[in-house]
Amino acid sequence: MTEATTSHHGYIGHKDDYLKRLRRIEGQARGLQKMVEEEKYCIDILTQVSAMTKALQSVALGLLDEHLNHCVVGAVEAGGEEADEKLKEASQAIARLVRS
Amino acid sequence: MTEATTSHHGYIGHKDDYLKRLRRIEGQARGLQKMVEEEKYCIDILTQVSAMTKALQSVALGLLDEHLNHCVVGAVEAGGEEADEKLKEASQAIARLVRS
Amino acid sequence: MTEATTSHHGYIGHKDDYLKRLRRIEGQARGLQKMVEEEKYCIDILTQVSAMTKALQSVALGLLDEHLNHCVVGAVEAGGEEADEKLKEASQAIARLVRS
Amino acid sequence: MTEATTSHHGYIGHKDDYLKRLRRIEGQARGLQKMVEEEKYCIDILTQVSAMTKALQSVALGLLDEHLNHCVVGAVEAGGEEADEKLKEASQAIARLVRS
Repeated sequence: MTEATTSHHGYIGHKDDYLKRLRRIEGQARGLQKMVEEEKYCIDILTQVSAMTKALQSVALGLLDEHLNHCVVGAVEAGGEEADEKLKEASQAIARLVRS
Repeated sequence: MTEATTSHHGYIGHKDDYLKRLRRIEGQARGLQKMVEEEKYCIDILTQVSAMTKALQSVALGLLDEHLNHCVVGAVEAGGEEADEKLKEASQAIARLVRS
Repeated sequence: MTEATTSHHGYIGHKDDYLKRLRRIEGQARGLQKMVEEEKYCIDILTQVSAMTKALQSVALGLLDEHLNHCVVGAVEAGGEEADEKLKEASQAIARLVRS
Repeated sequence: MTEATTSHHGYIGHKDDYLKRLRRIEGQARGLQKMVEEEKYCIDILTQVSAMTKALQSVALGLLDEHLNHCVVGAVEAGGEEADEKLKEASQAIARLVRS
């Protein structure tokens, strides 16, 4: 195998954990549809939306932490332009998260 | 049928629209699982998470707007303690959204 | 005195409390300048920025709660177009808070 | 050269810019007090709070970007435990920003 097949994505080591969390989030999206279908009380639906948003945020923060610890650190250690590129990209992703 | 069976939940008139948006959000949650499964680049996953968070926020703001216009206005017009209760509940839901 | 001179702004009853909180926030802004001036560690500055953002958010949620309980309720009780206008305005302010 | 001359804080190069932005934010905090003092309309006050929150967020994102590009990169290049420490600290600061 060549080096090109080696993935450096930070989250790979916890892939199953992320898949589990995302499946739970998918379940929350289905639960919300059921609540609307059954015409549940708006405030109860909003409470579920807040919980789902927090779960998503938490996945994002986890992925970002692993990205910084793996991809960004790897690029800095390798040096060169890629490090700058990766840092810029990470800052932009952080800005999107903070503003969303 | 008695009047008591008539639901006043604000979003009912746009139920199909909300269901459609929530199904799309469910699809985004599935798309994220596929990205993790296929070991896509972290930053691209984070971009999708931000888009999904924005879509959820937008559903929440829509539901809240209809809740204020229907349930809260209805309670204020009816007067009495229920109005206070509904307003307190709405403020708490808004705080959860702002803080999530 | 005519009725027109009576202010209905919800926060008036707690004006001193809001002024005190805003003065504290102004102090936090000055504290941040001092930290930058003295070249303090970035992470410590960011911690203060988060605290200040939370204090501002809390002022906003308080003002909004009083606005709903006074101005909006007053407009709904008075009926007519003004109520719709006030509700629309409140929803837009909530959206700005949630998205900022 | 003495040790005191070696500053690694990322924002130092733009110190004046940050001070200017923070002074403007301090001015916004004073403007809010004036609005409350003069009993301005709640919604107009909330609009200013949202603007101020955005300005603060923008300062935070700038500081964080420079922190990643200087302190964190420096620590990674130096290697060792300090890099891990700095990355952990940065992730925690990001989480506080996303959640505030």
